Amino acid sequence: MELHAVADLPEIRPGDDIAELVADRATLEAGDVLTVASTIVSKAEDRAVDLEEFPVSGRAAEIADRLEGITGDEKDPRFAQAVLSESTELLIDAPFLLTETRFGHICVNAGIDRSNVPDNDILLLPKRPTKSAERIRAGLEERGIEDVAVVVTDTCGRPFRHGQRGVALGWAGMPASRDWRGEEDRDGHELGVTVQSVIDELAAAANLVTGEGDGGTPAVVVRDWDFGDHGGSDELFRSVEDDLIRQALREWRFEG
Amino acid sequence: MELHAVADLPEIRPGDDIAELVADRATLEAGDVLTVASTIVSKAEDRAVDLEEFPVSGRAAEIADRLEGITGDEKDPRFAQAVLSESTELLIDAPFLLTETRFGHICVNAGIDRSNVPDNDILLLPKRPTKSAERIRAGLEERGIEDVAVVVTDTCGRPFRHGQRGVALGWAGMPASRDWRGEEDRDGHELGVTVQSVIDELAAAANLVTGEGDGGTPAVVVRDWDFGDHGGSDELFRSVEDDLIRQALREWRFEG
Ligand SMILES: Nc1nc2c(ncn2[C@@H]2O[C@H](COP(=O)(O)OP(=O)(O)O)[C@@H](O)[C@H]2O)c(=O)[nH]1
Ligand SMILES: Nc1nc2c(ncn2[C@@H]2O[C@H](COP(=O)(O)OP(=O)(O)O)[C@@H](O)[C@H]2O)c(=O)[nH]1
Ligand SMILES: [Mn+2]
Ligand SMILES: [Mn+2]
Ligand SMILES: [Mn+2]
Ligand SMILES: [Mn+2]
Repeated sequence: MELHAVADLPEIRPGDDIAELVADRATLEAGDVLTVASTIVSKAEDRAVDLEEFPVSGRAAEIADRLEGITGDEKDPRFAQAVLSESTELLIDAPFLLTETRFGHICVNAGIDRSNVPDNDILLLPKRPTKSAERIRAGLEERGIEDVAVVVTDTCGRPFRHGQRGVALGWAGMPASRDWRGEEDRDGHELGVTVQSVIDELAAAANLVTGEGDGGTPAVVVRDWDFGDHGGSDELFRSVEDDLIRQALREWRFEG
Repeated sequence: MELHAVADLPEIRPGDDIAELVADRATLEAGDVLTVASTIVSKAEDRAVDLEEFPVSGRAAEIADRLEGITGDEKDPRFAQAVLSESTELLIDAPFLLTETRFGHICVNAGIDRSNVPDNDILLLPKRPTKSAERIRAGLEERGIEDVAVVVTDTCGRPFRHGQRGVALGWAGMPASRDWRGEEDRDGHELGVTVQSVIDELAAAANLVTGEGDGGTPAVVVRDWDFGDHGGSDELFRSVEDDLIRQALREWRFEG
């Protein structure tokens, strides 16, 4: 398996065609996976916005106020409002905001970035990252590039472990996971691990190459990796019934 | 960046020298990262055991009994005892066991595997995976192979997202994370993402190559990836104070 960053991508502007920009700079082959950082997908989809676009609700003012009291840092209630507007559920409201975005992803601040946004205050995540991945894949196909899977990625934190790592937000042209159910181990026994989230593993692998800074390398071509002869699943985000941690969080409140 | 599985590794037995087995089969270069699945580290460290080695405590009997009632599947109380014996804290006791292992890793069933264990009932995780990584790295150095980092990996699940993915349990020869604090984005602003868990990303990348089944490919060489000129951190597992999810779980109980 090989990973190479796509070189020389420009600063991405609203309306830019990512498929075209990548196709002009990289040789893609059937079976490759193209990972694309959500940052540039958002820029292309005009998701860089200013805070003044978020008139503050009472709830957002209250949240920002409490966070300011707890952290001692100034908190803009318009930012809290942007997070609420992007979310369907607020899982933790202090000492930071953990929410479920409208497309089902759980992360801090609804994944809103303040880095790598040149002309606006903030960058929202793509509205429907799987749709974005499908569009990029279709754009490649229009240019005669067939059978390339696309994964839209972000970097985010997680419970239990320090630090952040690359994760998948959207995908097209391959299932989200390898389903190993019914397959056997080296001794002919049934496997313990059943569902391998390969798009998250691809996103994590790509993140080693893209980095988090000024590298200018948001797109990565993965070659010579094969999904293989397995069942597939397209479920990535857990539902509440299926997630004890979410259930526990619903009954809990930070008392700091 | 390139990843290649080490070919032709045999079935690993207690006392086997993983450094030697890998060095005989792969050409390692300075700057490479070698990932090794915990399964074979455990086998080499004699961590394949039988359930009869776990005399059942009252607590284990109670846990197994409740799980049996909830899930409708037969539960061996000796397995519950093995999980307790490997753990320092029980975070969830139903409808499955989520614990913190003695070395700080949080996962279901203390990471105990029933797949890929030929002659015993179960396989415990290595006792101190970072010590294991250091030993393998020292073994490579004894054979004149210098400057190869080693990451001991496992596959496990996570909150919020379906499926399992590769994670790091232990590491040697490199920091666990890249610390981006103080570095700048493309516009000279401070970065949002601060700590990138590169060993977890390496473990996830390698897992795409090792797979979960009968592939027989537990070791992967990562070439042409560079930690780069960043600060580093060796904290991987969050402490309770630093983990709201753990705090929430302490106050919660499954009522199913
Ligand atoms: N060429 C180019 N690179 C960008 C642009 N915006 C961000 N990047 C790069 O994309 C990579 C990922 O950036 P990051 O902010 O971590 O994106 P995220 O993980 O999707 O939130 C880094 O190498 C950035 O330097 C852009 O508009 N053009
Ligand atoms: N050569 C060899 N491969 C093994 C052995 N045990 C497991 N494997 C392989 O190692 C890889 C990872 O196995 P898995 O059970 O998922 O390990 P884990 O992720 O560390 O729990 C798979 O390709 C297995 O077939 C062994 O003793 N020898
Ligand atoms: Mn981001
Ligand atoms: Mn990033
Ligand atoms: Mn395992
Ligand atoms: Mn595995």
